[in-house]
Amino acid sequence: MKQVNVAILGCGTVGTGVARLLLDNGDIIRDRIGCALHLKYVADIDMDRARGLDLAPGVMIPDAAAAIADPDVHIVVETIGGEGIAKKLIMGAIAGGKHVVTANKALLAKHGNAIIEAATARRVDLAYEASVGGCMPIIKAVRESLVGNRISGMTGILNGTCNYILSKITDEGVDFKTALAEAQAKGYAEADPTLDVGGYDAAHKLAILSALAFGMKINFDDVFIEGISRITPLDIEFAAQFGYRIKLLAIAKFDGESVEARVHPTMIPFDNLLSNVNSTLNAISIKADAVDEILLYGHGAGMMPTASAIVSDLADIARNLASDGAGRIPVMGFQADTIRSIPVMSMDDIVTNYYFRFDALDRPGVLAAISGILGKYAISLKSVHQKGRKANGSVPVVMLTHQAREADVSKALAEISVLDVMVGAPMLIRIEDQNGQD
Amino acid sequence: MKQVNVAILGCGTVGTGVARLLLDNGDIIRDRIGCALHLKYVADIDMDRARGLDLAPGVMIPDAAAAIADPDVHIVVETIGGEGIAKKLIMGAIAGGKHVVTANKALLAKHGNAIIEAATARRVDLAYEASVGGCMPIIKAVRESLVGNRISGMTGILNGTCNYILSKITDEGVDFKTALAEAQAKGYAEADPTLDVGGYDAAHKLAILSALAFGMKINFDDVFIEGISRITPLDIEFAAQFGYRIKLLAIAKFDGESVEARVHPTMIPFDNLLSNVNSTLNAISIKADAVDEILLYGHGAGMMPTASAIVSDLADIARNLASDGAGRIPVMGFQADTIRSIPVMSMDDIVTNYYFRFDALDRPGVLAAISGILGKYAISLKSVHQKGRKANGSVPVVMLTHQAREADVSKALAEISVLDVMVGAPMLIRIEDQNGQD
Repeated sequence: MKQVNVAILGCGTVGTGVARLLLDNGDIIRDRIGCALHLKYVADIDMDRARGLDLAPGVMIPDAAAAIADPDVHIVVETIGGEGIAKKLIMGAIAGGKHVVTANKALLAKHGNAIIEAATARRVDLAYEASVGGCMPIIKAVRESLVGNRISGMTGILNGTCNYILSKITDEGVDFKTALAEAQAKGYAEADPTLDVGGYDAAHKLAILSALAFGMKINFDDVFIEGISRITPLDIEFAAQFGYRIKLLAIAKFDGESVEARVHPTMIPFDNLLSNVNSTLNAISIKADAVDEILLYGHGAGMMPTASAIVSDLADIARNLASDGAGRIPVMGFQADTIRSIPVMSMDDIVTNYYFRFDALDRPGVLAAISGILGKYAISLKSVHQKGRKANGSVPVVMLTHQAREADVSKALAEISVLDVMVGAPMLIRIEDQNGQD
Repeated sequence: MKQVNVAILGCGTVGTGVARLLLDNGDIIRDRIGCALHLKYVADIDMDRARGLDLAPGVMIPDAAAAIADPDVHIVVETIGGEGIAKKLIMGAIAGGKHVVTANKALLAKHGNAIIEAATARRVDLAYEASVGGCMPIIKAVRESLVGNRISGMTGILNGTCNYILSKITDEGVDFKTALAEAQAKGYAEADPTLDVGGYDAAHKLAILSALAFGMKINFDDVFIEGISRITPLDIEFAAQFGYRIKLLAIAKFDGESVEARVHPTMIPFDNLLSNVNSTLNAISIKADAVDEILLYGHGAGMMPTASAIVSDLADIARNLASDGAGRIPVMGFQADTIRSIPVMSMDDIVTNYYFRFDALDRPGVLAAISGILGKYAISLKSVHQKGRKANGSVPVVMLTHQAREADVSKALAEISVLDVMVGAPMLIRIEDQNGQD
């Protein structure tokens, strides 16, 4: 095989990046894989979007369906995004026997099982390295490098927007709104930032990774999701006093029977490498029996890092084409007939350590009332901190707990929140601290 | 293909680990790759070494050659080590058409070009993920994940023994000898520690990685190597004052024409993730045009982490066997006919920032004499620190330089070292600081 023909659907940031990388680094790619990745089509309704690219005549076309229908096209790259037209085109490409590469995590998280089933049945490759962690080779690491391991957990910073905002609040003491506005001004956050700051994007990625790591069907609906919009500079300051930094973590754990899958702001100790991953960067730590732990770090988004991951998928598929190896690696890392529906644990059953912050009126008996309720639900405290500074007559009361069950914590906080002395809703931040979990 | 037959040659720590992983995790490996990795032989002259393994009768054999000669064996795993018998057996296996997996970095660094040539000619796979960075998937990342990138540099902590010793000196202020003795007591260093503390092991790995990243022949002879035995607690203390930690780094850079390849103790800033990689752990940062930077972290040695990397190689080869894809990825990541002999820059031509420590008698004119010689060689100083404390009548004079050429630095230090007022040889530590290189 001298040449593999590629069609890119969608000429936005990522599609443009892929086209640019194929054009600029085509020589070294060919030297490595032994055949050319030839850019046959870039399809976009808005033909002007290819302006920055030096495309040969006829490469830019307005009709994605025409690119899919061309029998010379081997691989279709979907960089349109969203769950409508993107899904339709991917399913059409698979039906037509094309191999597919996508970075579309929302689509895979919500409709991945059906798409994977179609690709497996049609014996075409479906590759998605760019869907999680940008250029970090996390899909390859889990599917290939850890093939001999039983994976027990993953802890990742998987959303650059949130990490930028939290880093900003940490470094400059600004509030969430100011940090978000700055992220938007720099192009790190969308005009409607909900998908990112609400934790949904990280949850999409976690659903994909959990399936891949544990051999389960993709289950996005059961991922617990909590965003970062309630995090204040005060919480970050308290966290630092206890030796923690606050990150939006995507956490998955597997005990052999059920899976924990949750995305929420989390306190992690300074000596955890993840606590030193700042700005828009991503990182993920994977725990597994043979390796103990590996960690990957890199840009989780951006034009060229994402393009790099897509080109690595293209190269893998091109190599499969050269050796008649389509389906060489099953889409989700496990042979299709071994993939199970592993139950995701209810958030109620999670056991972890907690940080609470209560804004209470500075009156006698407040601490007794709060700790009485916590005691009733068997939540035992590791430490209590009352900060002298008052604001509007209230003082922050901060508590760190020993291990407690989420259901108990929810009930206790509901009771505490309706105490007369409480000003505003209680703040709860979960703690991941391997050294301090007791 | 229902079953791929594996023969392990050498039942030391790593060989035992591979056997154990194939036996303990055989079920999940089969679920992932769709065929069994069957342990057909473990060969070792000392048959007692398999005591801890629950092997079926006939698996343990004394004769490695017999395992290679068995036509049913698909893949040979070499875990003997060294450059004598290991090389002979690998060449024999290749000649017999067996695929080969090895963790033997010394062998690959010194004889890799010939072995690779033989494997390429015979169209068998030669895999070596475990040879660099233990379970970190660095070979796969460079060969596959970064396929679309031009790689410009790599900076790695690639020797766990050195990292343990330097971490120990840093954390506890003990001297090199004490830290080494502790490493030996814990089994992290050999009785003869030269290969590790002398920097040679890291240099073996760097030679392999440079070839892989830049598309060049393996060239171990031209790697500059300096070990850690001269590092003192005092240097580590000064480094911390300037915001640096000292690590044994393996550094490779490529400007498109020539390559820098060097292993030496290096000062790196606290905010560099590598400075937070401690104890026996390894990490490597790779710079490339599309991804900017990725970093991998994990155990660089040890029974099961190394076994994990070897099993990932076995799985890759098993997948190739299923699809007639041997040689699917060229051994060194580039098609054989595109690999060049890229010159390695002489150490004299390296330009970087330096830390000097001179132990000088506390007499007038000392600073003038030292800085006069540095000025003569156009080495300009960023800062000078004279520490009050005297030991044996001498005071440490510490200097940080702006960018300077190694050849100039060598000449200047040679002149300074013979000044009457000097007590002992000057200390030189190179600095890698992207923010501070001027």
